[in-house]
Formats: sequence, structure tokens, C-alpha cells
Amino acid sequence: MTMSGRTDAGDRSVETLGEVSERDALRRILPLLPASRTTLIGPGDDAAVLAAPDGRYVVTTDMMVHGPDFRLAWSTPYDLGWKAAATNLSDVAAMGAVPTGLVVAIAAPADTPVADLEEIARGLADACRRLAPGCGVVGGDLSVSTVLTFAVTAFGDLEGRAPVLRSGARVGDVVAVSGPLGRAAAGLRLLFDHAVDADGEPDRARFESVLAAYPEPVTAQLRPQPPISDGPLAAIAGATAMLDLSDGLALDARRVAEASGVAIDLDPSLLGDDPATALSGGEDHGLLATFPPGTALPGGFRIVGRVVEGAGILAGGRPFDGLGGWDPYLQWDGNAG
Amino acid sequence: MTMSGRTDAGDRSVETLGEVSERDALRRILPLLPASRTTLIGPGDDAAVLAAPDGRYVVTTDMMVHGPDFRLAWSTPYDLGWKAAATNLSDVAAMGAVPTGLVVAIAAPADTPVADLEEIARGLADACRRLAPGCGVVGGDLSVSTVLTFAVTAFGDLEGRAPVLRSGARVGDVVAVSGPLGRAAAGLRLLFDHAVDADGEPDRARFESVLAAYPEPVTAQLRPQPPISDGPLAAIAGATAMLDLSDGLALDARRVAEASGVAIDLDPSLLGDDPATALSGGEDHGLLATFPPGTALPGGFRIVGRVVEGAGILAGGRPFDGLGGWDPYLQWDGNAG
Repeated sequence: MTMSGRTDAGDRSVETLGEVSERDALRRILPLLPASRTTLIGPGDDAAVLAAPDGRYVVTTDMMVHGPDFRLAWSTPYDLGWKAAATNLSDVAAMGAVPTGLVVAIAAPADTPVADLEEIARGLADACRRLAPGCGVVGGDLSVSTVLTFAVTAFGDLEGRAPVLRSGARVGDVVAVSGPLGRAAAGLRLLFDHAVDADGEPDRARFESVLAAYPEPVTAQLRPQPPISDGPLAAIAGATAMLDLSDGLALDARRVAEASGVAIDLDPSLLGDDPATALSGGEDHGLLATFPPGTALPGGFRIVGRVVEGAGILAGGRPFDGLGGWDPYLQWDGNAG
Repeated sequence: MTMSGRTDAGDRSVETLGEVSERDALRRILPLLPASRTTLIGPGDDAAVLAAPDGRYVVTTDMMVHGPDFRLAWSTPYDLGWKAAATNLSDVAAMGAVPTGLVVAIAAPADTPVADLEEIARGLADACRRLAPGCGVVGGDLSVSTVLTFAVTAFGDLEGRAPVLRSGARVGDVVAVSGPLGRAAAGLRLLFDHAVDADGEPDRARFESVLAAYPEPVTAQLRPQPPISDGPLAAIAGATAMLDLSDGLALDARRVAEASGVAIDLDPSLLGDDPATALSGGEDHGLLATFPPGTALPGGFRIVGRVVEGAGILAGGRPFDGLGGWDPYLQWDGNAG
């Protein structure tokens, strides 16, 4: 099976990466990718040159590996390109910066159809255009591997502002989030419960049924739409601390509390229909921020709690030890599919 | 066998990545890594913030994958960290920039000893300190994968100068190189000829003999020492074009010739004892640059040819079609070891 779920064994009409050179593959992908508005020298030389208008730039990097991070029966190549971009853009936004550029390194099996790589590029491109207009792909690398692997590094512009760190929350601040809570985790649970065959292996046909029945959580898992523009808006509004919600509200709020030397009291009545999943579910890639009391919250931010004296996390005023989160070393079962 | 070539099956005293959390692994690695002189906000938040003193920054990314790019019977974890840094630093230097920072994403099998990861970090650190003092690791990511994979993105500072592109060579310029030619390829040939067992599989014991007999070429392959500081020196001296010698002199010179709309005539008498390997051998990661005639060549640069009218590559005035180079999609045989 190829990355796009087709069975192409023996189909000579499908051109694969193993049949074209790295240079030819790049020639077909590069035109699909948007340029960055900060590009001074783009792809094609030893390195790109980007503008840093205020003399600083924000940098983050993240890998996505077939098996622990995605299943090819569930994600299309387009989805993978989209998610690889979206999750990195979210880390840039969580500093209060505007995403400006990405470099994308992909290692793919030699039997990967070139058309799948083009779909990855389209996913990367659309995520940039939709989530962070003006951000583009400024460079990359293509390698061969038996395991499909993405490594994206993203850049951003603070536009003269101070970065918003995890360590700035103060007692009395309100705690707010932008973006859904627990929806991506709900989607993943639906996939593992219902989009598998009798042996528990990811199954494309059953996936289509699950997607049709539960489009919102499944799409939140496979093609997240983080509220990127809310990151700079939060910084402008005076956010005292901020981070990307990658490991679930409880664990990520605990990080802010630890870094800031405070406690965070989350209000379960503000966490929707399923507070347990909202607290523990990861991969939403929304934003968690703290603001001084009385701040008019920008964009999609809504209050979910407040900063209090102490340490760790409370839920409705009582100590909360649930963690959530996902550790690839401790938790991956070794399966791919 | 672990990454360091030891056989640890059943040895409970060896702590592996699968037994510690990603966070604990990072806590052990980060203190080993040098800081960057441009770091404003270092690792630990959603993203790092780096200074770009002249309002621009140079960016390049490169992947190294177990199998096509290295063999664990030949490279130690320290070697891998060193090479992952060195090859990226070289791309920054080839723009005429001073390397300032790296972000490093590593995907490793769950049974990788944490001690091997620490050795990778020491290799990264020493390559930065020795080849590009002031450059440090500003961020990273750890993932699990069945295939050991490195993705490094490197940054640099042009210090107010124009970047040196591939496209600036002019008829009459001299063509010069810094660093060895063909030595890394000679090392790789020795390894494949003599550091394998009867079945052709990479073998650690035979490797030790080859390393002892031929330390220079083997070390050039496994732990290259690109002349990083010669990149900025070439820019200051007025280099008209420059690039990193990653795919062999002939192929890389052809890239300069194509981008510049000129021909390059290489002089085999200036290419050492083995001109054929000097022309075709890749992975030296030295620098190829063109300079206006009469330029006092800086650092380790020495003349190997001149820029003439026409297209493509000549050797001693006659058309040269040998290519060299290495294309992972077309040339990897699928073996690891």
C-alpha cells in the first residue's frame, strides 16, 4: 500500500521517488509551495536568507514519524503536509510571533509515488495560506528511509514585541484558551475504537465511515486548524504567559504553573460537555494564555480558570493530578499501519 | 546491537530511551550542548528567540538517515552528532555567513541507550566548538522511530555582507577550493572494500583495522572537518560565487557553472595524486569558490581552475562529463548495518 492508501504493486504507471532523482522530485514540488514574505534568497542555494525586520527571529522544530505520530490508513499525504505545518506554526504563534517561514525535511521510502509527495506539498502550502498568510516554505531536504519521517523547522517575527514565555503568569491573572479542547483526542479515540479491522489494525474503509459520522473530531486530529493569528493578538493584548496546547490542558497548564511559580485553578464548568477529555486530551494545538484581570480577551480566547497562589493544577479549587499528554518513548506500542 | 556497537541484549544496567520520558532525556542532553552567542531565549519554551544583528539570517536544513547516510558498525554516536553538525555548518559557511545556531531533531529506536544520545550530544557540541566557536544548539525535538534519523537546521549571520550565491561566477575568475578533495570518498571506498564481513555487511572489528591503517580518509568520511571559517573569509575577500562541496568537485562546479551561465575549466594537475577521485568524490564538505583574478586567496583556498566562456565543466580544457555525486533515491541499495 502506498502513502495514499492505494494498492499499486506492479502498476508501472505510478512514478515513484526511487525512479526520479532528488533534484527532479524537488523541481516538481517547489512550484507548489508558497513563498515567504520574508524571503531574501529562496530555495536552490546552499541556504536561504530571510529578513528579520526587528533584528530577532523565533525558531521551533518538530518531527512527525510514521507509527508513533500518524497512520497511513487514516492520514492522506495532504493531511500529513497540513499537520506538519500546522503544529509548527502553532509553536511560533505561542511565542506571540507571526509565522514567516518553514524549512521541511522529508525522508520517504523509495516506493513513494511522486504524486504523494506533491500532495504533501499541497497540504503544507494550504496550511500556510489558510493559517498563516505570508508564511512560506524557504528550504528543505529530501532523503530516502524505510520510515516516512517529517522534520519541520518554523520561523517567526515578533514585530518588535517581547516574546510571551511560559514563565510570566501572575497570581490574579485569568487563564484563557483559544481553539477546541479535547477534540483532537476525541477524534483519535474514535479512530482507534472504530477505524480498525478485526485485528485492531488501522483500516481505510472503516476510517471513511468514522470520518463521515464524526467529521469534526476526526478532522481536528488529522488536519488541525490552530488559531495562529490569536498568538500575536494575545501578545498585543498583554498576555503574561502563553503556550501551545500540544499535550492537553492539564499538562500544559501545569507547565505554565511550574515555570511561573504559581498554581492554576481550572473551572470544569467552563470546559464543555466532556471536561475530562478537555483536561487530558492532547494534540489540539490551540493556545493557552494568561492575561491580567480585566483584559478584553482577543480573538477566540475564552476564560477557563485563574492563576492562584501555590503550585500545580487545581480543578474547581481541588488539587488535580490527572496528566494526559503523550510521551512517544514511553507510550508508542511499536505499531504503524 | 546498540548504536555504539555494543551487544547489550538482556543487560538491565543499560538505560534506554524507552525507559525514560522525552523530558528526562532532554534534561540529560541539554547541559552537554553549547549555547549560541545569538540566543535571546534558549530551549525550553515553545520556540527559541535568536538575534539577527543585521536584520537577516541564513537557514539550511539537512537529514541523515541510518542506512543511506551512515552505518552503525562504522560511525559511533559521537561521530553521528559531529557529522550532523559539520555538514550543516558547511552549508551556512558556503553563503559567506558565520554559523550561529542549530536546532536538532532526532528520531531514535526505543532501545537506544540514553548514553548513546549523550554521546551524540557531545559530538554535536564538539563540532560546534571546534568548527564554529560561538555557534550552539538552540532547540530540538526527540521522537521514537525504528530508523535512527537526524534532522538539523542551521542558522548563520552574514554580518552585514551580501550572501555569496552560486550564480555570481564571471569569466576570468579563478576557481579555488578549501579543504580536502576526494578524501571522504576514498574513506568510504576503504570501508566498503575492507570494513565488511564475508557477506559484505559492515563489521566493527574489521572497521577498527581499516581506521588504524588509514586514519585520514576514514576520519574525513565519518567526522569531516569542513573549513567553516574560510566561508566568511572568502566573502570578505570578494568571492563571486561559493558552495559547499557535498557531491564532488565536478558536480558541484557544474552547479556553479549552470547558475552563473559560464563554463568552469578544472586543472587535473592541481587536484592531487588521485584527480579522478578528487573530481567525483562527494561528502568532503569543503568550499568551492570563485574569485576575481589577482585576489589574494584567504585561509586554506587554493586554485584548481578558472571560469571560461561556455557551459558545463572542462578538465584540462577538454569537456568533462563525469559527474560523481550521490542520489539517495537512485543509489541507496536498501541496506543498513
